[in-house]
Amino acid sequence: MHQLIDSLFMKEFSNSILSQRKDSAILKLGDEKIAFTTDTYVVDPIFFPGGDIGSLAVNGTINDISVCGAKPIFISLGLVIEEGLPKAVLDRVIKSVGAASRAAGVKVVTGDTKVVERGSADKIFINTSGIGKVSYENLSVGKIKPGDVVLVSGPIGDHAISVLSVREGIAFRAKVKSDSAPLNGLIFQALKVSKNIAFMRDPTRGGLATTLNEITKLSGFGIALEEKEIPVREGVREACELLGLDPLYLACEGRVVIIVSKNDAAKVLSAVRKSREGRAARIIGTVTKEHKGRVYLNTLAGSSRVLDMLSGEQLPRIC
Amino acid sequence: MHQLIDSLFMKEFSNSILSQRKDSAILKLGDEKIAFTTDTYVVDPIFFPGGDIGSLAVNGTINDISVCGAKPIFISLGLVIEEGLPKAVLDRVIKSVGAASRAAGVKVVTGDTKVVERGSADKIFINTSGIGKVSYENLSVGKIKPGDVVLVSGPIGDHAISVLSVREGIAFRAKVKSDSAPLNGLIFQALKVSKNIAFMRDPTRGGLATTLNEITKLSGFGIALEEKEIPVREGVREACELLGLDPLYLACEGRVVIIVSKNDAAKVLSAVRKSREGRAARIIGTVTKEHKGRVYLNTLAGSSRVLDMLSGEQLPRIC
Repeated sequence: MHQLIDSLFMKEFSNSILSQRKDSAILKLGDEKIAFTTDTYVVDPIFFPGGDIGSLAVNGTINDISVCGAKPIFISLGLVIEEGLPKAVLDRVIKSVGAASRAAGVKVVTGDTKVVERGSADKIFINTSGIGKVSYENLSVGKIKPGDVVLVSGPIGDHAISVLSVREGIAFRAKVKSDSAPLNGLIFQALKVSKNIAFMRDPTRGGLATTLNEITKLSGFGIALEEKEIPVREGVREACELLGLDPLYLACEGRVVIIVSKNDAAKVLSAVRKSREGRAARIIGTVTKEHKGRVYLNTLAGSSRVLDMLSGEQLPRIC
Repeated sequence: MHQLIDSLFMKEFSNSILSQRKDSAILKLGDEKIAFTTDTYVVDPIFFPGGDIGSLAVNGTINDISVCGAKPIFISLGLVIEEGLPKAVLDRVIKSVGAASRAAGVKVVTGDTKVVERGSADKIFINTSGIGKVSYENLSVGKIKPGDVVLVSGPIGDHAISVLSVREGIAFRAKVKSDSAPLNGLIFQALKVSKNIAFMRDPTRGGLATTLNEITKLSGFGIALEEKEIPVREGVREACELLGLDPLYLACEGRVVIIVSKNDAAKVLSAVRKSREGRAARIIGTVTKEHKGRVYLNTLAGSSRVLDMLSGEQLPRIC
C-alpha cells in the first residue's frame, strides 16, 4: 500500500523538492530558507505509557523539521473527531498538545476541526504540519562517506512496544514507556559542537533497520552495525520475544540516528548524552565502502547478516 | 461542538497569532511575512458534481491563503485512507489533487499517508496545509468602515447543494455543480485594481450569513444586505425549498466576500467579473453604522430581518 502511494505521489507531484525525499521539504521563500513538513497521527490507543496522540503529533513534526537542520517555530493542528468523543478525552488531548508545544518552544498558530459521525473515524486523528527555519544547510546524504560513524540517541523500539502493550492488553515484567519526545534541543546541541555531521533521520516507521536502509540506498554506501552496541531495553526485548518481533524494525518517536565523521564522533556523542533524551546514546556502526546500499549486522553470535527493508505490512496505527 | 473546541483551542494555544482569527495565520519568519493555514477535508461523498475531495482540499487551502492577501506557493498533503479503498479511487483523487495544484500554480512539496483498518475511517480524509507569501498587508477587519460595499464573487450555496444532492440521492430539475475553485487569480486581480479593499473572507462553513456575522462581530459595524441582489441559482433555490434549507447558510467553496470602499466598488466588481470564477459577481450590501455587530437582510417583500449566526448543527461533512 505504501509503495503504491509512494509511486502515485511521485508520478503526480514530481518536483525537485518532493524528490529530495527528506523528512521535511526544504524551500526557498523570498530570502528565507524554510523546512515544511506534515504528518497525520492515527495511533491506537490514543493514550499509552509515556505519551498520547497529542504530544506524539507535536513531537513527531518537531523532529521531522529538526533532523533537517531547521529550527521548528510554527505548527498547525488539524483534528478529525468522531462524534461522541467524551469532552474529557478531547480536553486531555488538547492540553497535551499545548504542553508539548510549550515544552519544545513552538507555537500552534492555526487549526481546523472536523467532526464526523460515529463510526466514520476512530476517536480522533491529528494532523500537524510544521514550519522551521533552516539553520544548518549542510545536512545531506551526499555528505556521507565511508568511515563515518553511526550514532543512535537512545534505546530503540520503546514507542512501538508501549503502544502495543496497551493495544494488545499485554503486561510485561518491565513496563515500557514510549520514547516520544521533542529532539530539537538535542539535535541543535549536536550540530553546535560539530561541523562534520553529514546526515540525520529519526527512525520512526519501520524502525532503525528501515531508516538505515533508506540511508544506504540514498548514499550508495553500506552500513555495518554492531549488535552488541545497539541499545534495547529489557522490556522491549522481552516483548519482542513474546510477540515475535524484531526490535530493529520497531518505530521510535524520540530517537535520532546521526551520521558523523569519525573524528567528531566522540564530541557529538558527549553533546547528545548531555540532553535528557540522549543520555543512553551509543555509537552503533560504521559507514562502509563495501556492501553498497545494504545494512549489515555483526551479531552477538559473531556472524553477520543483511538487514533488509521492512517487507510486508508493518505494525498498523503505531503513530 | 465547534464552540467547545474553539474555546478549548483559545485557552490552550492563546497567542497573538491565533487570536487574529483569520483564515490563515500571518507570521514573521526572518525577513519574510508568510501566511500559514491548515484544513482537513472529510466530505461525503468524495466525488460530487463539479469536484471531489482532492480538488476541494487544494482549492480550500489556496483560498484561505489568498483571502489574507498572500500568494499561495506550497502545500502539504496528509492522507488518512481506509483499508480496502479501491486503487482506482485513490488514483482518481490523487490525480485530482495534482490537476488542481497545477491549475492554481502551487506545488505539493511534502506528504504523509496513514492507512487505517476498515471501519476506522470513511474512505479517505485529506489534510492540506499551505504556505503563502504576503503581498498585500493592509487587509484587516479594522479597515472596514461604514459606507463600504459588500461584494460576493458569484452565486451562493452551489457546493453544499451539489454534495447534498449526491448524498441524499435527490435529483433536482436544474443540476447544481459545486463552485469549488481556486480564487487566487480572481483575488489578486481585485487587489491589483484597488488599494481600498478592506477585508476578504470565503463563505465556507455556515455560508454567507455566518461569514458576514463574523465580520460584523469583529468590525463592530453592521451590514445591510439586499436580498434581491444576492445571486442564488435556480437549482439551489429549488433544493433549498425541498430540503427546508436557507441558501444564506450554505457553504460555498469557490466564492469570496470582498469589503471595499464605495468609490472603488465599480472597478473591483469589474476586475472580479473578468475572471471565470467571478463572472456573476454582485454588490449585495453595505456596511452600516447602525445595527452594530449585526447583519440585516432587506427582503424582497420589503421587510427587514436579522440574520443570525448559524445556530445548532450545520450540515455535516460538506467539506
